[in-house]
Amino acid sequence: MFESFIYSPEKGLQAQVSTAELTLALKEERSILWIDIFDIEDSDIDFLTSVFNLHPLTLEDFIMPNARPKIEKFRDYLFLVMFSLESLNGNGKGAIKTTELDFCLGKNFLITFHECPVNSLNLCKDRIRKQSPMMQHGADMLLYSILDSCVDSYLPVIGEFDNLVDAMTDELFKEPSNETLKKIYLLKNQILHLRRTIGPQADVISLLGRGDFEFVTPSTLIYFRNVYDNLVRLNDVVGTSRDIIAGAMEAYVSIVSNRLNEIMKTLTVIATIMMPLTLIASIYGMNFKFMPEINHPFGYPAVMAIMMVIAIIMLAYFKRKKWL
Amino acid sequence: MFESFIYSPEKGLQAQVSTAELTLALKEERSILWIDIFDIEDSDIDFLTSVFNLHPLTLEDFIMPNARPKIEKFRDYLFLVMFSLESLNGNGKGAIKTTELDFCLGKNFLITFHECPVNSLNLCKDRIRKQSPMMQHGADMLLYSILDSCVDSYLPVIGEFDNLVDAMTDELFKEPSNETLKKIYLLKNQILHLRRTIGPQADVISLLGRGDFEFVTPSTLIYFRNVYDNLVRLNDVVGTSRDIIAGAMEAYVSIVSNRLNEIMKTLTVIATIMMPLTLIASIYGMNFKFMPEINHPFGYPAVMAIMMVIAIIMLAYFKRKKWL
Amino acid sequence: MFESFIYSPEKGLQAQVSTAELTLALKEERSILWIDIFDIEDSDIDFLTSVFNLHPLTLEDFIMPNARPKIEKFRDYLFLVMFSLESLNGNGKGAIKTTELDFCLGKNFLITFHECPVNSLNLCKDRIRKQSPMMQHGADMLLYSILDSCVDSYLPVIGEFDNLVDAMTDELFKEPSNETLKKIYLLKNQILHLRRTIGPQADVISLLGRGDFEFVTPSTLIYFRNVYDNLVRLNDVVGTSRDIIAGAMEAYVSIVSNRLNEIMKTLTVIATIMMPLTLIASIYGMNFKFMPEINHPFGYPAVMAIMMVIAIIMLAYFKRKKWL
Amino acid sequence: MFESFIYSPEKGLQAQVSTAELTLALKEERSILWIDIFDIEDSDIDFLTSVFNLHPLTLEDFIMPNARPKIEKFRDYLFLVMFSLESLNGNGKGAIKTTELDFCLGKNFLITFHECPVNSLNLCKDRIRKQSPMMQHGADMLLYSILDSCVDSYLPVIGEFDNLVDAMTDELFKEPSNETLKKIYLLKNQILHLRRTIGPQADVISLLGRGDFEFVTPSTLIYFRNVYDNLVRLNDVVGTSRDIIAGAMEAYVSIVSNRLNEIMKTLTVIATIMMPLTLIASIYGMNFKFMPEINHPFGYPAVMAIMMVIAIIMLAYFKRKKWL
Amino acid sequence: MFESFIYSPEKGLQAQVSTAELTLALKEERSILWIDIFDIEDSDIDFLTSVFNLHPLTLEDFIMPNARPKIEKFRDYLFLVMFSLESLNGNGKGAIKTTELDFCLGKNFLITFHECPVNSLNLCKDRIRKQSPMMQHGADMLLYSILDSCVDSYLPVIGEFDNLVDAMTDELFKEPSNETLKKIYLLKNQILHLRRTIGPQADVISLLGRGDFEFVTPSTLIYFRNVYDNLVRLNDVVGTSRDIIAGAMEAYVSIVSNRLNEIMKTLTVIATIMMPLTLIASIYGMNFKFMPEINHPFGYPAVMAIMMVIAIIMLAYFKRKKWL
Repeated sequence: MFESFIYSPEKGLQAQVSTAELTLALKEERSILWIDIFDIEDSDIDFLTSVFNLHPLTLEDFIMPNARPKIEKFRDYLFLVMFSLESLNGNGKGAIKTTELDFCLGKNFLITFHECPVNSLNLCKDRIRKQSPMMQHGADMLLYSILDSCVDSYLPVIGEFDNLVDAMTDELFKEPSNETLKKIYLLKNQILHLRRTIGPQADVISLLGRGDFEFVTPSTLIYFRNVYDNLVRLNDVVGTSRDIIAGAMEAYVSIVSNRLNEIMKTLTVIATIMMPLTLIASIYGMNFKFMPEINHPFGYPAVMAIMMVIAIIMLAYFKRKKWL
Repeated sequence: MFESFIYSPEKGLQAQVSTAELTLALKEERSILWIDIFDIEDSDIDFLTSVFNLHPLTLEDFIMPNARPKIEKFRDYLFLVMFSLESLNGNGKGAIKTTELDFCLGKNFLITFHECPVNSLNLCKDRIRKQSPMMQHGADMLLYSILDSCVDSYLPVIGEFDNLVDAMTDELFKEPSNETLKKIYLLKNQILHLRRTIGPQADVISLLGRGDFEFVTPSTLIYFRNVYDNLVRLNDVVGTSRDIIAGAMEAYVSIVSNRLNEIMKTLTVIATIMMPLTLIASIYGMNFKFMPEINHPFGYPAVMAIMMVIAIIMLAYFKRKKWL
Repeated sequence: MFESFIYSPEKGLQAQVSTAELTLALKEERSILWIDIFDIEDSDIDFLTSVFNLHPLTLEDFIMPNARPKIEKFRDYLFLVMFSLESLNGNGKGAIKTTELDFCLGKNFLITFHECPVNSLNLCKDRIRKQSPMMQHGADMLLYSILDSCVDSYLPVIGEFDNLVDAMTDELFKEPSNETLKKIYLLKNQILHLRRTIGPQADVISLLGRGDFEFVTPSTLIYFRNVYDNLVRLNDVVGTSRDIIAGAMEAYVSIVSNRLNEIMKTLTVIATIMMPLTLIASIYGMNFKFMPEINHPFGYPAVMAIMMVIAIIMLAYFKRKKWL
Repeated sequence: MFESFIYSPEKGLQAQVSTAELTLALKEERSILWIDIFDIEDSDIDFLTSVFNLHPLTLEDFIMPNARPKIEKFRDYLFLVMFSLESLNGNGKGAIKTTELDFCLGKNFLITFHECPVNSLNLCKDRIRKQSPMMQHGADMLLYSILDSCVDSYLPVIGEFDNLVDAMTDELFKEPSNETLKKIYLLKNQILHLRRTIGPQADVISLLGRGDFEFVTPSTLIYFRNVYDNLVRLNDVVGTSRDIIAGAMEAYVSIVSNRLNEIMKTLTVIATIMMPLTLIASIYGMNFKFMPEINHPFGYPAVMAIMMVIAIIMLAYFKRKKWL
Repeated sequence: MFESFIYSPEKGLQAQVSTAELTLALKEERSILWIDIFDIEDSDIDFLTSVFNLHPLTLEDFIMPNARPKIEKFRDYLFLVMFSLESLNGNGKGAIKTTELDFCLGKNFLITFHECPVNSLNLCKDRIRKQSPMMQHGADMLLYSILDSCVDSYLPVIGEFDNLVDAMTDELFKEPSNETLKKIYLLKNQILHLRRTIGPQADVISLLGRGDFEFVTPSTLIYFRNVYDNLVRLNDVVGTSRDIIAGAMEAYVSIVSNRLNEIMKTLTVIATIMMPLTLIASIYGMNFKFMPEINHPFGYPAVMAIMMVIAIIMLAYFKRKKWL
């Protein structure tokens, strides 16, 4: 199934045109076509092959999932694999969904392909239907508009991710637990995913901005470089998050060790105070016949006093050692 | 020993032809030859040297095991060392077996060489015997088909590996043991192996797709670039696994430290409660003549009550400190 | 709102001129213009677009915050995004504020844009008002002067940061606490920020010094290379700090473990001395009828002596083991 | 002192010729000379300078030890610094000795220089004396033969090293001790050494295989590339070992922590069982006059039974917690 | 203040000549001038500007400290910033002092500038005064001689540093303490400093050896490449030290953990033996009326024997577990 738009300077915008009209418009140089394909069917494949002359490998790339952005030049079009980002909201684990978005950019046409609905694409369609002049500046500017809106949609995802990183940092120094570690671990894996999505896309867009492809007119190059700048900036932000998370993982071991120190200090203090006292009490619990202190009327209070003094000295010692 | 296939537009496919026929067909430009050598014998070496004019270094590379993918241009052919992957199944340790697969791609012939049976190669032979048109588009397209099927066979291996990584992550946060660490360690070493197999293969295929070699026709370049894309994608997946495993190794120390904290908390709690109580009991076990409390009828229950209160206060304290 | 300066060989310096005069001066090749815009208004945008022919993307870059230095060539001017650094003083946490500073360098004009007041820019304006010859050598030398003063202002910020790193190192080996760890962690994140600010600026300035841009005259190239050298030097300093901080983080774990060892030694010494003594006391506290020692007149002093000996032997043992 | 070989198509091989004959043969294009110098003397230096026209820097490089492979083009010859590897056998510590081996490759001569005896060089000399045709294909093929035999001699060294790494891994998971750590540490440092020896040699040989030097004939280029391939392969093997060792170092901390956990579990279990029982016994050791249980005939067995029950409950608890 | 040397084929060497003579000699192509400036004065600056036509930026670089080696081409000379190394001797902390050394290499003159006395420079001056032919081969060979002597002076510094690293390794495995950690930490920071000094100098010298600069004659290129080789070699040595130190830091945590294990084993052994014995003694210290063992004549020796047996079994158990 696909949705189609034609813009021609004479007739303006037409939506959902028949395949015959598309074939005609394609031959007219001043018409701009946009075909958005989702849920591909065999008839679509035949149509694409015959009318747009798509290479079998392009069709294979449409159907098979790709895990990498790429750009490939064919005789009649440029083939691009890009990704849109969506945050699986509200679970607080930073899970992120990427949707593949394929483009074929020809002289006067743009074919987009995706298997799941893509928000930023729908926004573009809405704007076109509302007579936004997005299609009037050529197929390459249309591609730019879609890419720009796609990259803009990364911002909230990365913003949300940043909030999770900040929350994790707070937790790390306030009350770190095994849960905190798991969070750091999952954030780390998510960020791997993010970087492998954004970085190669920047590379691909950078190729678009260099002016090596005939279907991109010189005056639009600067726009693609602008998208590239945005992607590099996002990549930087994600890179910073990655380094922060890596630092958090390192810091976690230290924090846990610090807590162990606190625990062991408690144990050592209690043992160091109680053990000598218990020894003293045990000594006066011995059953020797001849123990002069035993029979002394002040023996008991004296021993208790000694114990008290020992305990106080110990506490003072630990106080000075800053263990208490 | 070798198996041979000839395809000519006139005679169609011929399998297991004599060396004389091979020599003839080689000279006919429109014939396509495929020689699959395994278990190399001296007579084979003579045959290869005389008919296909193979360089002594190529024969050395056939016989000696190589540990690295490479590509080397000779006058009459391109020499390629590639690898097929196989998972040693079922032991759950992610052990992976790589088999060397050498190729000589000439103008109208392809020689493959391997010492162990290679699954993807057998699949190709079967398809050819079943009249698949694999050989009709030239020796370079035949090479592509074999490489493609070879790379496709990586997918299940890497998929299985990914499952092991996921299982390890689950174990890591549920019940980490020395065994888990060993698993992480072995997975880490396996992934080293995987990366050193896949990455250089991508580099080699990338050279094939650049169009620098005369035996690869321009129209097939895009197919080799497709194989390259697949390899890079797999390399990315493996790279992600590597980073996840590295993170798991780091996390493991923290998890073990966390558990130590739990153990030490238990010990500290028990010692902190028991030691003062034992001290009190020891004090009243002293044999002093003059201990007024001893003779008091409520001395015993009073002491027991005091002990109880101390224990409860301690427990409350540890409860508030979240040690319990 | 904007401030403006015109220098012409005939009339000398004029400040705060009208837009009409600016438009005139712009056409006169020997006049040098500087427009400093802050708090941009719609009228400014119109003025910039009509008079200086600024590209819509440049205006977008003015209005939207950028997180990355960049350089972009337009037909009539070079567009630069740079950053000024300011240390948020006195909190001892090394927090650093970066302010974006955009430049448009034309044949005979320089436009600067910033949203917050920038110290080094104000210094330049003051110097110009005091008849410093900064503007007389062309717009490119003016740009150099501003960049140079901007980079000079990094020095105190980085110096202050270095002091924090030194203070942290001292603390690390003297009295490391959880606070120290937090400081290291925050310094680490700050340095990430610093590096991502300084490094790309050096790259941008390096492009300026290469002589690829027509608006930079050959004789000023060496000045931009000088700014570049300063930035690279600062980047080196920051890189060293980064490595020191990373080392501190690693060292911290070891230091905390060392302290745990000290704590555990204390506990082990106390337990090893007290436990055997308590056992002996407990043995003579047993109520057996037939214990010959009990009735011996020297039983009590003998046991006390034995205890003393055991304690001394233990202490000597630990002394030799260097645990005390 | 030096050993010399001349091969000429007319006279065949001559060994240990006089310097006069060498000077003559050098001028005859079809003669191939090999001079192997060890234990250099002043007369040798004069001879080399006058006859072979060696640059003072080459002589300096002969005399001074070099720590890096390099290649340097002079007017009359190529100068190469390479290394041979030898395992200091049997100490099980992976100690490796590298010996510098310098080459001067001229049009029809090869000079080798070394200070210690080099095994692979002696093998080559033996083969030449036994009429191996090594010298008949020119000085560059002679260089190849020596380099090839040199690189071949790396294999057993690296194989032995790999065995040490495997043994270390086994020890790591079976009975890690401080000794194991020391082994890992020493292996790590050895591997640093290996990598810095092999990697740069590959770079140097790679330059030889590129065809930029006139003294290497085009048909031998492929042989040098073969040596390069072998070196890269060895470098890969060493790189894998390095990563395994790095992983072992990381794993070691975890393993030691795991063992600490085991130790602390033992301590906690014993303390948790013994302390409450001791408290109970201490309570009934108190000397209160009015303790009804004391006088009860079943008091003693009842307390013993209670102790038993507490001990069993504790053990069951720890069993369920998997601490036992 | 400056020292000056002129060499001319006619007059030979002249030292400490007047500025007038310098100005004259400068114009004579066959004269070689060397001006060594230290403690720069205003009159020197005027002299340099007028006679040698030094660029204001060069003078700025003379006066301001630089932290980075660099090379910059001016019209009349090449400007170089290099560093000499000196070990602050005897404190055993590896502290290293770097002194900036600036060069201006013209057609027939060399200007050196430094603020502190530089040993290797003084050595060169001495050799020149003793009629060493250093100045006769041109200003570029003079530069080479100084650089060579400068790089040679690195060797003892790096050698001393290596000794400190070796001493640290010994200490690490023999008696690691908090001091050892501090040493590792300081060595690590020193090595950062060393690498940032040596590496960029190699880059700068590499540019000199490439032949891109007119003031370096082709025949001296190989000498600069020789200096480059030496620097790269030193950089390798320093790099190895860095990796060893990094490994030491990693190993330190493990060693400290190992020691903690030893400590905890001691504690656990003592507690596991003493606690059950104390329990038994406490049991027989209970005051129950009806305890048949109490009245038995062999009760006491029997209990003592049982205690002994328990202690021996425990010891045997720990022996087998290799905890003792």
